[in-house]
Amino acid sequence: MPTRATKFSLRDNQIPTAWFNVIPSMPTPPSPPLNPATRQPVGPADLAPLFPMALIEQEVSTAEWIDIPGRVLDVYRMYRPTPLLRAKRLEKALKTPARIYYKWEGASPAGSHKPNTAIPQAYYNKAEKVKRLTTETGAGQWGSALAMASAFFGLKCQVYMVKASYDQKPGRRVMMETWGARVTPSPSEETEAGRRILAQDPDSPGSLGIAISEAVEDAAKRADTKYSLGSVLNHVLLHQTVIGLEAKLQMEKAKDYPDVVVGCVGGGSNFAGLAFPFVPDRTRGGREVKFLAAEPTACPTLTRGRFEYDFGDTGEMTPLVEMYTLGHTFVPPPIHAGGLRYHGDAPALCRLVKDGVIEAVAYPQSKVFEVAVQFARTEGILPAPESAHAIRAAVDQALACKETGEEKCILFGLSGHGLLDLQAYQDFLAGDLIDA
Amino acid sequence: MPTRATKFSLRDNQIPTAWFNVIPSMPTPPSPPLNPATRQPVGPADLAPLFPMALIEQEVSTAEWIDIPGRVLDVYRMYRPTPLLRAKRLEKALKTPARIYYKWEGASPAGSHKPNTAIPQAYYNKAEKVKRLTTETGAGQWGSALAMASAFFGLKCQVYMVKASYDQKPGRRVMMETWGARVTPSPSEETEAGRRILAQDPDSPGSLGIAISEAVEDAAKRADTKYSLGSVLNHVLLHQTVIGLEAKLQMEKAKDYPDVVVGCVGGGSNFAGLAFPFVPDRTRGGREVKFLAAEPTACPTLTRGRFEYDFGDTGEMTPLVEMYTLGHTFVPPPIHAGGLRYHGDAPALCRLVKDGVIEAVAYPQSKVFEVAVQFARTEGILPAPESAHAIRAAVDQALACKETGEEKCILFGLSGHGLLDLQAYQDFLAGDLIDA
Repeated sequence: MPTRATKFSLRDNQIPTAWFNVIPSMPTPPSPPLNPATRQPVGPADLAPLFPMALIEQEVSTAEWIDIPGRVLDVYRMYRPTPLLRAKRLEKALKTPARIYYKWEGASPAGSHKPNTAIPQAYYNKAEKVKRLTTETGAGQWGSALAMASAFFGLKCQVYMVKASYDQKPGRRVMMETWGARVTPSPSEETEAGRRILAQDPDSPGSLGIAISEAVEDAAKRADTKYSLGSVLNHVLLHQTVIGLEAKLQMEKAKDYPDVVVGCVGGGSNFAGLAFPFVPDRTRGGREVKFLAAEPTACPTLTRGRFEYDFGDTGEMTPLVEMYTLGHTFVPPPIHAGGLRYHGDAPALCRLVKDGVIEAVAYPQSKVFEVAVQFARTEGILPAPESAHAIRAAVDQALACKETGEEKCILFGLSGHGLLDLQAYQDFLAGDLIDA
Repeated sequence: MPTRATKFSLRDNQIPTAWFNVIPSMPTPPSPPLNPATRQPVGPADLAPLFPMALIEQEVSTAEWIDIPGRVLDVYRMYRPTPLLRAKRLEKALKTPARIYYKWEGASPAGSHKPNTAIPQAYYNKAEKVKRLTTETGAGQWGSALAMASAFFGLKCQVYMVKASYDQKPGRRVMMETWGARVTPSPSEETEAGRRILAQDPDSPGSLGIAISEAVEDAAKRADTKYSLGSVLNHVLLHQTVIGLEAKLQMEKAKDYPDVVVGCVGGGSNFAGLAFPFVPDRTRGGREVKFLAAEPTACPTLTRGRFEYDFGDTGEMTPLVEMYTLGHTFVPPPIHAGGLRYHGDAPALCRLVKDGVIEAVAYPQSKVFEVAVQFARTEGILPAPESAHAIRAAVDQALACKETGEEKCILFGLSGHGLLDLQAYQDFLAGDLIDA
């Protein structure tokens, strides 16, 4: 019997019991969000119509550790701790001296890392007597996760789904409805924001910006309802750090430590979740770690964006936040990695890029699907198009090691599976994939 | 921090290292397969054109334990040990005093238990210098698993996919192609069997029986090619016992033991994989265990079939085997649980039913989807329509406990996820599901 370890599982009781807040470890803390009218920092009162107080407190917290409530842990335990695997078969195919590890978040029932924040968000809202949550979704990963978490905590869930996706991805809609959510194609007649768009263009395919406006308006006007966001905000990134906290323990089990930590970036929560727990080792501990964020060339926020205050949404309803941005009216081409089509990125992540802690790289989708297929054939898992950006960057790092002979340790985040993105694979295999 | 355990994970090194063969534990061994021409038991020579010798030896073995090769274990480790979970949230929703556990096989990269046998089958073929495997697939679970396993071992894989499914389920086809398999809609022009059907009916939607004939013919006529089957045969059931062997260890960790073991039955490999390792505790150890096989009323093999020798395929190309059968020309209605649409069942399983060790129950699909949705909303996982038959039977056992007040321990097998079966959920939620 061979003893070559390729999986580094934690015990059921080794699930993290506190989230890690990166703010105290940052060389420069992120600048505060501003009220667009007054240009003054927004306070808790500004956010209270949309979020429960517990999440607002987490949003502005400077504590390094925040306890995870027991009822959240109970639900995390359904799919956590998640596996850390060594990609031995991929290494062999690449003929690289590098060691490649990946943290696999796609085995959660919703198929991605998104439940890590959907579950606590549902919990805190329930604890503050909220009855109903609204949110927006594009491709549907986030909407699925919130629908599931809402079912667990007995909350109603209203998802505004970008109309183009609603029509093209019935599978994601059916998942959300199976978990009991109400899914409305956006723009809709149900909100002023939606009606305004439809008056101008009855056939509007919608956009994430419009869907956010609808979800925010719906929550703001109903006392029993709050709004829920799946990325960008500090508290969302905070919840995702269970990924990196587990990965650190698992790297210890593997008796290894990453020279490079890689993740894909859409709004930033997946990348932050894996990478942030490793940040103090570099900024305070003297460890040399390269943090590498992978994004699409079609939406090159970190590699081509400007670092400035901008709106989080197209409709100019959110506070202004300081981040790398392509401009809040930027409309990225319809690449298959729908979860990476965001004009900005999480302010905390952007600040770490600005300060040189995190580097970024961008790829066209044909290069991304090339390694997605190679990964499926060697490691089995059929990755989400978003996650495949991280594979691409990890593979390029490993191929560089092949040139130099360096035996680097590369850790990347595999945030979700691509079982609802098979059209993208079909297009790639048929040679029909277009690089934007 | 709460300590209520709901997941019972094994350590990475607690993966079984031998498969369990139920034959020595059976009150009556299964009757041998017969050559349809001579009515004599088939020998290894009859099977050699189709299977490698190692699998033929396993097919007829009476050893209780068969070692799992190290290279198979290496691949099993990518997704095994799989989780055993206690369905606390479902128990609460049912208000039952019963304890419900489920063994979750859907987190494998192919989405079901099927890789447990696809991997060793690919391994043994590779070891005997086979270059190419053929198989048939209906809904696509099995074809996906063999495509993936073939990629791991560098084998070519040719899948004959029932044409109706090929057209209706492009997602499954794309999965197989992503793993490198060649997928041909059946009936095809590539075999005599296919051409014969097409000559009679150019628009034939195909059937599993026709696809088997094509795959067998293809393998029989090429020296570099063997045939691979995903259920029914002894060696397939043997490989699946990793499920039950792990589950036994996990029940120990939970300090519990099942009064009832439940699984769905199509060809029988999923049910056997979970249940067989518990059989000697009952037949030899004096433990009272109820084994309950769940099948669709649309294809009621165990509950309505006759126990007799019959062909395994529609085309009368296979040996005759003694089993419960609806007749090899039986065509079940097109229910969503495509994996349960088989006219017979594994001979070893059928013999245990005949001898009263295993009981069977049948459900119409509306009753099945009712609990599938309840399960998704309480336990998160969106089950495959096949697996949901087991949930239905487990829930009914738990509801009976509510009546009687019995605190039974119920263990069921959750064999796969339903992420490629969302049309079925859509039909159910819309009230469009038809009971055959």
